[in-house]
Amino acid sequence: MTKKRLLLAGMEDYFETWRRAADSTAAGLDLVPYVPGQAFPGFPYLLIWRPVPELFASLPDLRVIFCLGAGTERLIADPSIPARLPLVRMVEPGLTQCMVDYVLWRVLYHHRRMWELEEAQAQARWAQHLYPAAWERKVGILGLGTLGQACAEKLAEFEFQVRGWSRSPKSVAKVACFAGTETLGEFLAGLDILVCLLPLTPETKGILNADLFARLAPRAALVNAGRGGHLVDDDLLAALADGRMGSATLDVFHREPLPPDHPFWLHPRVFVTPHYASETHPPSALVEIARQIERFEQGATLEHVVDRQRGY
Amino acid sequence: MTKKRLLLAGMEDYFETWRRAADSTAAGLDLVPYVPGQAFPGFPYLLIWRPVPELFASLPDLRVIFCLGAGTERLIADPSIPARLPLVRMVEPGLTQCMVDYVLWRVLYHHRRMWELEEAQAQARWAQHLYPAAWERKVGILGLGTLGQACAEKLAEFEFQVRGWSRSPKSVAKVACFAGTETLGEFLAGLDILVCLLPLTPETKGILNADLFARLAPRAALVNAGRGGHLVDDDLLAALADGRMGSATLDVFHREPLPPDHPFWLHPRVFVTPHYASETHPPSALVEIARQIERFEQGATLEHVVDRQRGY
Repeated sequence: MTKKRLLLAGMEDYFETWRRAADSTAAGLDLVPYVPGQAFPGFPYLLIWRPVPELFASLPDLRVIFCLGAGTERLIADPSIPARLPLVRMVEPGLTQCMVDYVLWRVLYHHRRMWELEEAQAQARWAQHLYPAAWERKVGILGLGTLGQACAEKLAEFEFQVRGWSRSPKSVAKVACFAGTETLGEFLAGLDILVCLLPLTPETKGILNADLFARLAPRAALVNAGRGGHLVDDDLLAALADGRMGSATLDVFHREPLPPDHPFWLHPRVFVTPHYASETHPPSALVEIARQIERFEQGATLEHVVDRQRGY
Repeated sequence: MTKKRLLLAGMEDYFETWRRAADSTAAGLDLVPYVPGQAFPGFPYLLIWRPVPELFASLPDLRVIFCLGAGTERLIADPSIPARLPLVRMVEPGLTQCMVDYVLWRVLYHHRRMWELEEAQAQARWAQHLYPAAWERKVGILGLGTLGQACAEKLAEFEFQVRGWSRSPKSVAKVACFAGTETLGEFLAGLDILVCLLPLTPETKGILNADLFARLAPRAALVNAGRGGHLVDDDLLAALADGRMGSATLDVFHREPLPPDHPFWLHPRVFVTPHYASETHPPSALVEIARQIERFEQGATLEHVVDRQRGY
């Protein structure tokens, strides 16, 4: 059987990792690196991360664009991407599983107030503290896409009181689901820990702001694994300073890498992770891309196609 | 309905917390504090944590001893406890849930090499690192009692490759179960993360030693939430020094509080928590004790009775 060719662009740093993964899986894909200035006729499938100037003029036979990640806002903002081509965001088990790991780990960190133990250890001080049971904590997930649903389900299995919020109505077992802007206040009321897994769109930009923080429980924790643009940095710093918010884990930032002089780095209650929450796992992602290509060639509808008007 | 009276001894620090919990639950128990030197005729039920000298001479009508915690080695070692009385170890949902929280949180910590991020943050350094998917990690649980089984199940739901080991054969969904001393080597072979939740008995004392560490994967992580007596401290320090072991989370110690000059405190790869992994949750524990008293009074067999010969 001839392998299908998949062109990779805007992800030069990762090409060798992906090629090794392709060699070790049965996905049946032949990965070819894009070379600027060269034409690639006969390539219907593209996997892309960063926008690449003048890419599309050299791909006359392109039919499907696969995005390397779940967040597609940079590609949507690139006017050079032909509107007629389907843009598929990444949904694959490796990415989902790693996000579940990350979110649970960080929620447990805030739930158990780990930083108090770290401070005590640095002083060789035996300092027990009481903590509530998981079922006494209210945890909210902003965004109930594939990642948000998986995290909400897992948090509910841990017996946290879980709420979820999304633009359109969703249903998740043992999770109180809220939909639409008019329910946002009710969703937020008294949450102890808020996790943001929203897509970045004009509607969600800056949603993590002083008004939102004021609705949470006192000294609530924020986990932002969405996008840096969701957060108003100064509002979080002010809310931490006046005790309205208690702590935060931030994985995403307005500028990445986070500039060395940003106050988040050395803030004792802000835990910075380097856009590391989750990433696409090449072996399982290649299997997923091959599955979608198979569907596409058999005339079935592609899944996870981005609605560029909606923004995700 | 008359409330049943439960005498509390060897847990003076906690009495008020328990009384508040009793007032707020429908367990129907009236908690009475033991007072040294006073006799307590007409009390069939005792809840106890630390051994109390001369306690049992003052309880002529005692019929059941409930232990406040899951680990009963201190009570078993107390020769003053009448052998004819059933000793019930604590099994209740709050204790189980908190242990699951703790173990998952610590396994994720080692899985994601969190300390690298902490070190990078202290230097305002953006340092991404790669990490395997959960299903590429081998995690083992020593001890498949109530706590070990709950943790093993949850780790398997996270898609870790999970093995469990116990004295007698157990069966846990999606967990490779090993039983008996002769299978210990097979169980340990190549584990990336080992969690100890064993009871402390003459057989398990010092089980976490150089021989055991040598069977794990290089730079493996240890999570000890069993008892301090399971670990040979110097063997762990030597294995960390020569790179055989990579990191450890320790919640329990030979002496507690851990003495301020113990090398674990300031070791950069040892994470000390102050016997804090889990604790009995009074509201749910009282419901459980009331349920057991009800069973006992109806002539049914008590559950979770300690076999003092076996040691748990």
